[in-house]
Amino acid sequence: MSDVKKVVLAYSGGLDTSVIVKWLQETYNCEVVTFTADIGQGEEVEPARAKAQALGVKEIYIEDLREEFVRDYVFPMFRANTIYEGEYLLGTSIARPLIAKRLIEIANETGADAISHGATGKGNDQVRFELGGYALKPGVKVIAPWREWDLTSREKLMAYCEEHNIPVDFSNKKKKSPYSMDANLLHISYEGGILEDPWAEAEEDMWRWSVSPEAAPEQPTYVELTFEKGDIVAIDGEAHKPHEVLEKLNKLGGDNGIGRLDIVENRYVGMKSRGCYETPGGTIMLRAHRAIESLTLDREEAHLKDQLMPKYAEVIYNGYWWSPERRMLQAAIDETQKNVCGVVRMKLYKGNATVVGRKSEQSLFDESIATFEDDAGAYNQKDAEGFIKLNALRLRIAAGKGRQQS
Amino acid sequence: MSDVKKVVLAYSGGLDTSVIVKWLQETYNCEVVTFTADIGQGEEVEPARAKAQALGVKEIYIEDLREEFVRDYVFPMFRANTIYEGEYLLGTSIARPLIAKRLIEIANETGADAISHGATGKGNDQVRFELGGYALKPGVKVIAPWREWDLTSREKLMAYCEEHNIPVDFSNKKKKSPYSMDANLLHISYEGGILEDPWAEAEEDMWRWSVSPEAAPEQPTYVELTFEKGDIVAIDGEAHKPHEVLEKLNKLGGDNGIGRLDIVENRYVGMKSRGCYETPGGTIMLRAHRAIESLTLDREEAHLKDQLMPKYAEVIYNGYWWSPERRMLQAAIDETQKNVCGVVRMKLYKGNATVVGRKSEQSLFDESIATFEDDAGAYNQKDAEGFIKLNALRLRIAAGKGRQQS
Amino acid sequence: MSDVKKVVLAYSGGLDTSVIVKWLQETYNCEVVTFTADIGQGEEVEPARAKAQALGVKEIYIEDLREEFVRDYVFPMFRANTIYEGEYLLGTSIARPLIAKRLIEIANETGADAISHGATGKGNDQVRFELGGYALKPGVKVIAPWREWDLTSREKLMAYCEEHNIPVDFSNKKKKSPYSMDANLLHISYEGGILEDPWAEAEEDMWRWSVSPEAAPEQPTYVELTFEKGDIVAIDGEAHKPHEVLEKLNKLGGDNGIGRLDIVENRYVGMKSRGCYETPGGTIMLRAHRAIESLTLDREEAHLKDQLMPKYAEVIYNGYWWSPERRMLQAAIDETQKNVCGVVRMKLYKGNATVVGRKSEQSLFDESIATFEDDAGAYNQKDAEGFIKLNALRLRIAAGKGRQQS
Amino acid sequence: MSDVKKVVLAYSGGLDTSVIVKWLQETYNCEVVTFTADIGQGEEVEPARAKAQALGVKEIYIEDLREEFVRDYVFPMFRANTIYEGEYLLGTSIARPLIAKRLIEIANETGADAISHGATGKGNDQVRFELGGYALKPGVKVIAPWREWDLTSREKLMAYCEEHNIPVDFSNKKKKSPYSMDANLLHISYEGGILEDPWAEAEEDMWRWSVSPEAAPEQPTYVELTFEKGDIVAIDGEAHKPHEVLEKLNKLGGDNGIGRLDIVENRYVGMKSRGCYETPGGTIMLRAHRAIESLTLDREEAHLKDQLMPKYAEVIYNGYWWSPERRMLQAAIDETQKNVCGVVRMKLYKGNATVVGRKSEQSLFDESIATFEDDAGAYNQKDAEGFIKLNALRLRIAAGKGRQQS
Repeated sequence: MSDVKKVVLAYSGGLDTSVIVKWLQETYNCEVVTFTADIGQGEEVEPARAKAQALGVKEIYIEDLREEFVRDYVFPMFRANTIYEGEYLLGTSIARPLIAKRLIEIANETGADAISHGATGKGNDQVRFELGGYALKPGVKVIAPWREWDLTSREKLMAYCEEHNIPVDFSNKKKKSPYSMDANLLHISYEGGILEDPWAEAEEDMWRWSVSPEAAPEQPTYVELTFEKGDIVAIDGEAHKPHEVLEKLNKLGGDNGIGRLDIVENRYVGMKSRGCYETPGGTIMLRAHRAIESLTLDREEAHLKDQLMPKYAEVIYNGYWWSPERRMLQAAIDETQKNVCGVVRMKLYKGNATVVGRKSEQSLFDESIATFEDDAGAYNQKDAEGFIKLNALRLRIAAGKGRQQS
Repeated sequence: MSDVKKVVLAYSGGLDTSVIVKWLQETYNCEVVTFTADIGQGEEVEPARAKAQALGVKEIYIEDLREEFVRDYVFPMFRANTIYEGEYLLGTSIARPLIAKRLIEIANETGADAISHGATGKGNDQVRFELGGYALKPGVKVIAPWREWDLTSREKLMAYCEEHNIPVDFSNKKKKSPYSMDANLLHISYEGGILEDPWAEAEEDMWRWSVSPEAAPEQPTYVELTFEKGDIVAIDGEAHKPHEVLEKLNKLGGDNGIGRLDIVENRYVGMKSRGCYETPGGTIMLRAHRAIESLTLDREEAHLKDQLMPKYAEVIYNGYWWSPERRMLQAAIDETQKNVCGVVRMKLYKGNATVVGRKSEQSLFDESIATFEDDAGAYNQKDAEGFIKLNALRLRIAAGKGRQQS
Repeated sequence: MSDVKKVVLAYSGGLDTSVIVKWLQETYNCEVVTFTADIGQGEEVEPARAKAQALGVKEIYIEDLREEFVRDYVFPMFRANTIYEGEYLLGTSIARPLIAKRLIEIANETGADAISHGATGKGNDQVRFELGGYALKPGVKVIAPWREWDLTSREKLMAYCEEHNIPVDFSNKKKKSPYSMDANLLHISYEGGILEDPWAEAEEDMWRWSVSPEAAPEQPTYVELTFEKGDIVAIDGEAHKPHEVLEKLNKLGGDNGIGRLDIVENRYVGMKSRGCYETPGGTIMLRAHRAIESLTLDREEAHLKDQLMPKYAEVIYNGYWWSPERRMLQAAIDETQKNVCGVVRMKLYKGNATVVGRKSEQSLFDESIATFEDDAGAYNQKDAEGFIKLNALRLRIAAGKGRQQS
Repeated sequence: MSDVKKVVLAYSGGLDTSVIVKWLQETYNCEVVTFTADIGQGEEVEPARAKAQALGVKEIYIEDLREEFVRDYVFPMFRANTIYEGEYLLGTSIARPLIAKRLIEIANETGADAISHGATGKGNDQVRFELGGYALKPGVKVIAPWREWDLTSREKLMAYCEEHNIPVDFSNKKKKSPYSMDANLLHISYEGGILEDPWAEAEEDMWRWSVSPEAAPEQPTYVELTFEKGDIVAIDGEAHKPHEVLEKLNKLGGDNGIGRLDIVENRYVGMKSRGCYETPGGTIMLRAHRAIESLTLDREEAHLKDQLMPKYAEVIYNGYWWSPERRMLQAAIDETQKNVCGVVRMKLYKGNATVVGRKSEQSLFDESIATFEDDAGAYNQKDAEGFIKLNALRLRIAAGKGRQQS
């Protein structure tokens, strides 16, 4: 255990990771570098500096990664209309690759030979952090305290704090909640507590980012979203940076009771778990993106995207962002987004994010062909007979030879 | 054109298909058999008898197919969580195979050598009717009047009526609507009119089956749905036949503003079209089915289902219900549903159909493993290290050999 | 029919397409531009000039497209290890997109408003030519004489020749064969004649490009193939242009009895047909490409390629080279080929093309890890326990709850 | 380590597993039950009885599983035309599920609480044995000596033998080979030795089951294989049990130099390894099965099978035979095999297994439609125009709107 010289820790400034700082220093007798990032979790990151200093940390990284996070991770993922297991928008999953990347880059800058994180041994996040770390620096040593130490209960943790003079107000107030929570610009998640019974309804006061549909305004809000190459670049005609887009949509969605989700999901480590999520902006984005694609994508590329999506979602959920298969899928997805431009008009009302209009200069919708009125030149209804006849041929031959047809 | 002796027509009793009766009799000089089915479109079918008789039809089939429709078509499709292009629940598509099957069966019973329908040459329905027909009776002759005749405008149709003494009150009142509509137990659809501009918002008075979210009750409705082998068999503990399930859910959904959809879709014949749909019960069913699966399906079979679903949806949308590939996919899907049993609790409120609880005796959710508290015997957190290390191995080797990782 | 002013014809110089020249001139009263390409079919193309002139053609295009054909079509396709229905290397399919592209480019250059070809109405080639044509020039008129005229037997064709003074020695000698043949640098194909009985063995004297395994040399030939980014760039250390690579491998393969294939395949137009193919060079390339990939591709990208391949093959077979879905798949495939570099050593012997060695500077094979001898540092055998335990977890939970396991 | 009472060991009778018997008895102080199966590895299994007795084993299971192995594992796998990574016929992988199943069944019969095997910690077999074990008996304890003990070199093993009076002639003579080998009715495999250099050609005297193509007879052998529902039931008209079919085809193939393979493959545990395989009968079966399917399968089910196959192969290779996803895929595959009946005629000659004819009463090949001669009634060439026009429509619309097409 003594072969670690310096370790970069993903440090939230909260109680758990503060304990980890001390524990790493003691157990590995090594220097600890802390890395704290603002990825839109909604808390100040600057206070982490003083806390880390108090713990004797000399190299402290505090960074605002919000723009990079949305531009290089969230947006590319949404180009694929990514949903895990039919429901989950991957809010936690998509934040990990960026953290892993920065941990490794800081390790390289500071000459550290190890990285560490505060994820437990039962969840997906350990996998995501570590796969990223190994992919980007194959010789890195990974320290996952929750899999190593014996501080396996809150009581033991508090005792450790007392023993090592770690101020308990390091404890993130939020953690007083009975839920295990995680937040970034894309979502906030809740696990544990009464949620461990999948039959129990989540309590209203658990939710933090959105009002309930019941409490949302009685009047709908309309919003127009402008897409360029699959990404939203403007809201109601006003241009925004990627993270501003998401911040604004989170506000709009949260105010209108949009984006709550309550599911049981399959973790990569082999168990089912129940989680609740608020993804107000993401929920709007997904619907809007499908709508602009409905106008601008060719049918066959759209269907192929739909067939690849579950695999792409699985790759991200399981932690393989930094992998050849993700790059391969991304290349296919991005190839289709060149013409995904235009405007989608949405109505937000008490939990509903409804598409009510879409337009695009790259539209493949051709009113003159689709109309039920007289034939346009490009479409001769008589062609349909040959189309059907040849498509039916294999079925007719089979039936003619007595094959079961029903 | 004179080689048809007897033709079975899918007859709604409306103006268009009444014209077709007459046109077939005149043009092909053949006997016409009418077939009118109640598949839950919400209109009386019995009046079609007198209309057909008035047109000189001697063999008149009028049938209530609601139970068969939901049991053998809708429910199997919902076992796959089927959605076309991310949004559409295939309400029109799924009704066609049953109609095609009955047309052929009636042709066999009555000694008819042809079938006919009132679908246009630009849409998907002609394909669905005819592929089904050819698959089930390979030598059948198909007559698609809209692809053959010159009655291509409403004026010409009305003139034809007058000329042939077809009472104009045959005209379905509903058709006074500016929209082209189609309904069955699963949904009602709207096309045409102002919808031909994808930027135009549908008018509130277009919708027929649901109140708007705004007009829905201020109090949520909770409902418990019981599944057996993937199908809903009881609502709030009361057993129902398949079509009763859907009828009841349509009522519950419609009353709560649930199930409206406004999309641009890709037709099989090659064009985009804009459609609006109301699928109140189906929208609830889909969510509930996903929820009960989340508890009872293994992860890998669930993911495989998700990967196959877009293909399955395409097969049904394109009209290949009666095909080997549909049977093959169905076999895979049905294999997974043996344990999809249990109860889902949902909250219906102003357009939202939200899952708030799920339970099952076949549940694979194991609270003792998923908990964030102390380790259960079945799960040793230290195993995660080896799991991650070996999953990372290929990435580490590649990185160690200098491969691009980002 | 008189609305065509000028038509570009894919002209082989043979009897059939010579008849088409005349027939187009007469039937459409239009100018005919001929386009004859050398794509490695093994016949002189220059003689087509005099024949076309004799038929009164003024604009005559004769081109050597061999390099472009292999570089831009054959090689990209082989990057995907493309096989249709488990056996067929798509030799005919892959040549059509290039012909279609040139037909359209020539139409644009010469101001022609139509294109024409000599493919029948029962095969795949008509589809491939015409889909390409429509995709590249949506308003083009396509004339497919075999679907229009009544020259449906050899006798009628000959009578037409006599009547119109088309010299019968225009007739391609090869066509005396009882088989319908087609050739390009990738393969030669045979259909018709006794092959229409799938139980009948092809006669030895049908084959033209390869000796039989029985007649091949008693000594094996070894060859080393050098790959760069998925394409062969050198043979036995000597650099070659793409088409030279294929020419050389055709010679090597043909001399050693390699590349004969006898299959029943499913045509896009809905019927099964029996075809025999000789693809000597392609057969070697496919095996070699898989071998170099086995060393240089990551496992997951390799598996994903394998899962996409059947779709990619179908897209090409059905004639959708010029489509968004092909470009999308190509983007994914090409993304994986950056490191597909190295040398494969093969043994060619009496019909067998066997890989006996492969090496690469981009190899991901790590002898020190794969060895059965002592552990290398990167691999700790104890990690396997955790790997297996967590991968088994979902199965154990299911079994623990009494789920059927066999 | 003392919590094991009785363990069932997969016992070959060779040196390694004999050491394991002793090591288990000593280390775990538990009773050992041996299980030795004839799955066609080509060695007597009865001698294992005396060896086990000499080691103090009281419960000894020796079984002939050849028929079950081929009928319930090999044949179902071949129905899918299963190939891993384009080349490997999964000869090792497919034998493991049966061994795992018997280990667990014997554990249940004998009241054992553990199972054990002789697979190393670097390979796939440990995973396959253990996933099977856990899936069938979730509480079973698995002991993998190679991951636990320190007998990590041949020297240490021999020393252990001497120390514990394990007769060295227990040593399987075959193991004198420099290769690590494994055999069953489907194949024999070679790893290690000079094969660890992927550039090195395998030595001729390594191969055991087949003559080289060079040494094979100068005269071809023709054979006719009769299929029922996807499985071979007769050879040259003579009915055989499943394992007799494979034995006979192994003989025929081996005599004709068929079925050698030399590849680099990706192991599930994350590394690449090089292996050589002889699969004489399997190589013939695969080709023949594709041929009978080419005649009897519908196009779309055939293509869907091809798209699912790589996943199915991966599932088996990785050890998930006893999983819901395998059962789901099998259901889809088996659904397609009802009509896969008929006869395939093959020519075996110096390494080549060539299909030369196929016939079936369930054939979907229709000579009257496929012919190049006059139109059959079922096919009207003019239908092709409409077929192509509508299939081209989406491409034409896109091109008409200026989309990139090349």
